[in-house]
Amino acid sequence: MTTRRHLLAGGAAVAGLGVAAGAAVVATTGRDAAPAPVARTDAAPLTTGTATVPFHGPRQAGIAEDPPAHAAFVAFTLPGGTDRRALARMMRLLTDDVARLTQGVPALGDTDATLAVLPARLTVTFGFGPGLYRAAGLAAPIADLPAFRIDRLESRWSGGDLLLQICADDPLTVAHTQRMLIKDTRPFAAVRWVQQGFRRSPGVQAPEHTQRNVLGQLDGTANPRGAEIDPAVWNPDGSSTLVVRRIRAEMETWDILAASDKENAVGRRLESGAPLSGTQERDEPDFARLDDSGLPAMPDFAHVTRARVTDPKLKILRRPYNYDGVPNAAGHPDSGLIFASYQRSITEQYVPIQRRLAEKDLLNEWITPIGSAVFAVPPGCDEGGWVGERVLG
Amino acid sequence: MTTRRHLLAGGAAVAGLGVAAGAAVVATTGRDAAPAPVARTDAAPLTTGTATVPFHGPRQAGIAEDPPAHAAFVAFTLPGGTDRRALARMMRLLTDDVARLTQGVPALGDTDATLAVLPARLTVTFGFGPGLYRAAGLAAPIADLPAFRIDRLESRWSGGDLLLQICADDPLTVAHTQRMLIKDTRPFAAVRWVQQGFRRSPGVQAPEHTQRNVLGQLDGTANPRGAEIDPAVWNPDGSSTLVVRRIRAEMETWDILAASDKENAVGRRLESGAPLSGTQERDEPDFARLDDSGLPAMPDFAHVTRARVTDPKLKILRRPYNYDGVPNAAGHPDSGLIFASYQRSITEQYVPIQRRLAEKDLLNEWITPIGSAVFAVPPGCDEGGWVGERVLG
Ligand code: HEM
Ligand code: HEM
Repeated sequence: MTTRRHLLAGGAAVAGLGVAAGAAVVATTGRDAAPAPVARTDAAPLTTGTATVPFHGPRQAGIAEDPPAHAAFVAFTLPGGTDRRALARMMRLLTDDVARLTQGVPALGDTDATLAVLPARLTVTFGFGPGLYRAAGLAAPIADLPAFRIDRLESRWSGGDLLLQICADDPLTVAHTQRMLIKDTRPFAAVRWVQQGFRRSPGVQAPEHTQRNVLGQLDGTANPRGAEIDPAVWNPDGSSTLVVRRIRAEMETWDILAASDKENAVGRRLESGAPLSGTQERDEPDFARLDDSGLPAMPDFAHVTRARVTDPKLKILRRPYNYDGVPNAAGHPDSGLIFASYQRSITEQYVPIQRRLAEKDLLNEWITPIGSAVFAVPPGCDEGGWVGERVLG
Repeated sequence: MTTRRHLLAGGAAVAGLGVAAGAAVVATTGRDAAPAPVARTDAAPLTTGTATVPFHGPRQAGIAEDPPAHAAFVAFTLPGGTDRRALARMMRLLTDDVARLTQGVPALGDTDATLAVLPARLTVTFGFGPGLYRAAGLAAPIADLPAFRIDRLESRWSGGDLLLQICADDPLTVAHTQRMLIKDTRPFAAVRWVQQGFRRSPGVQAPEHTQRNVLGQLDGTANPRGAEIDPAVWNPDGSSTLVVRRIRAEMETWDILAASDKENAVGRRLESGAPLSGTQERDEPDFARLDDSGLPAMPDFAHVTRARVTDPKLKILRRPYNYDGVPNAAGHPDSGLIFASYQRSITEQYVPIQRRLAEKDLLNEWITPIGSAVFAVPPGCDEGGWVGERVLG
């Protein structure tokens, strides 16, 4: 911790930033850390950069809010010999960092304080993998998913003892936060994998409109919203669970499908998102309805038919991000979803849906799970507290 | 072209999209391709998604405009035996695609027409590498850069016969455009490399404010703007040139520097961006000024001192994007700049600056060029014409 203290003192003195105070001013004026260089008037107030999501509270942030445009999922591996006290030290430090960064205030010892001042709805959500509980000598409230026959899991996208889900409306904010938090986690854990994803940029669509994913589908229509989120996601103590699946989209074969085949695979129309039994996006699918040829309008092999859950306590909250990596020399894309799903219980809610999808879901022809990880999501904390306190404290 | 025609007819009929017409409506209503599912009123009109940059004109788009938030630089290699007629066919096809996509209209045979309707200031700029001229049997107006002693070039980020610079304010728009254009280029060329980068999200900063890069510096202060762009960038025929350098930032060593050392390396202050000889970002650097200890306030090894050009015809227009890849297991970041620079002439403008920087620039301690490519930028085209017509036609 000497370096840390040294950096803090040194950095602040040399740069004359006055870390927390300086940043607060900046956040209030809604501008860069730089004093406005020339007098200007802006057409519209710019609020995207200065918007914040509260950090403290009984439940962690980054779950129930509308997902911001950019995310980095960062998973760590704990070295052998990590004990509960080390974990508590790590979580105290990271909680302090996140409490600051999410409010547009540089972390203590932030080596790039100027990049901390535009949080853009930054949230950092902590997840604890089964290995973290093992290290702490505690029973884990979560366990790895069973194997599914559709899985083609690669270890480079799977597992993890600690997860940071970093979300913000600005990619530079995500990059800076990722860098700072990885640096502070280094004494305690090694980076296992990082998955970076995106949704629509701020201002491209109204938040209440369903976004399209890289496959061109309206994705999120039947997701719980508003008051429906509570029974699905939160345990009474403010905890939850998270499943992260990296699912590759087989674009080469998907792209040559006729639109009607794409629609049958999902059970909804491409353009409107309406169920094949209806006409409007928000129409309830009618699984009893037959089409002109006497077959169910909602095919029973369709993704939506298989995934459907009606009990509000058994639904899952999907919070997926698109990924688009570098295509290969033949020009085949490396695209898909970082499928993140929050629910009270993985075994009661996620697994039954995933099992039905793995058994029979036409969409499986064009999607392949290549990564998988599960995390317990501890409750949030009050000011002065730290995330994981009730587990590790 | 049978597949293409088939797809177009089939896709449009089945999906009932009525390709161009459908998209035009969508672009006008400023909404998704889907008919608005439920009546709603939005607080503010959402213009980020529907904003367009004109495609046709004597100069290509994507150069003089404020750079949008996201970019993909896609370089291709031509197979042996490519001739001028094949190149002309390729450029006719790609011009047609880009003329549509930039205006929010799906490309002919677009297999994901629903993703084409929110262009978000999409531009696609074409660059011709030395190999394209060789294939066409023409003398190239550009040549590979000389080797610099700072270079650690990797072939996976270097060279290229054809470049597409795809920029938009929305990452899904960039992903879709990249996918469509790569698909249409496939019969003619193989993907050589793809570099994806970002700047601040739309709405995070006013466009006239200088943005910070991943190193935390205000980057772009002394860039030509407005009328200053013309003499630096455009030849009388509307052509230009482009240098793309991938420059890794050595974050591990950069991060442990004191702020004053970071400032000396560049010659400007971190927080305000002011030259070390002044107090405001827009102050002209005063290279004659001495500091309290009698040394030049602007160190002569500083990046800005070495890079400075005063003749407006010899300046370059920098249009850099940040990149932030996946850190390694030790948590060391993979960050830096996709440094793109436009100028009339690479030899007259870019090379002298790069030579001075390679000789002596303190910033070299913390930045490493790992990729390099040069392209001629042909003039734009009018409706009915195609980019490259005057070169290949
Ligand atoms: C790349 C992978 C996937 C894609 C492209 C995808 C796409 C979609 C689409 C387009 C819909 C219909 C619109 C909506 O309600 O959002 C949907 C619904 C749904 N999906 Fe997926 N999905 C994927 C993976 C999964 C996985 C792994 C699960 C859970 C194990 C899942 C669970 C659901 C659920 C619960 C619904 C809502 C069903 C309803 O009640 O109507 N999806 N998905
Ligand atoms: C990672 C690599 C680089 C970084 C981080 C960087 C950073 C900066 C910064 C912070 C400034 C001062 C503010 C401004 O005017 O924008 C600057 C100025 C400048 N840079 Fe760079 N730069 C890099 C590479 C290059 C390269 C490769 C060139 C050209 C060969 C270049 C040419 C210039 C020029 C011409 C100026 C303006 C100088 C003046 O007239 O004041 N830079 N750069």
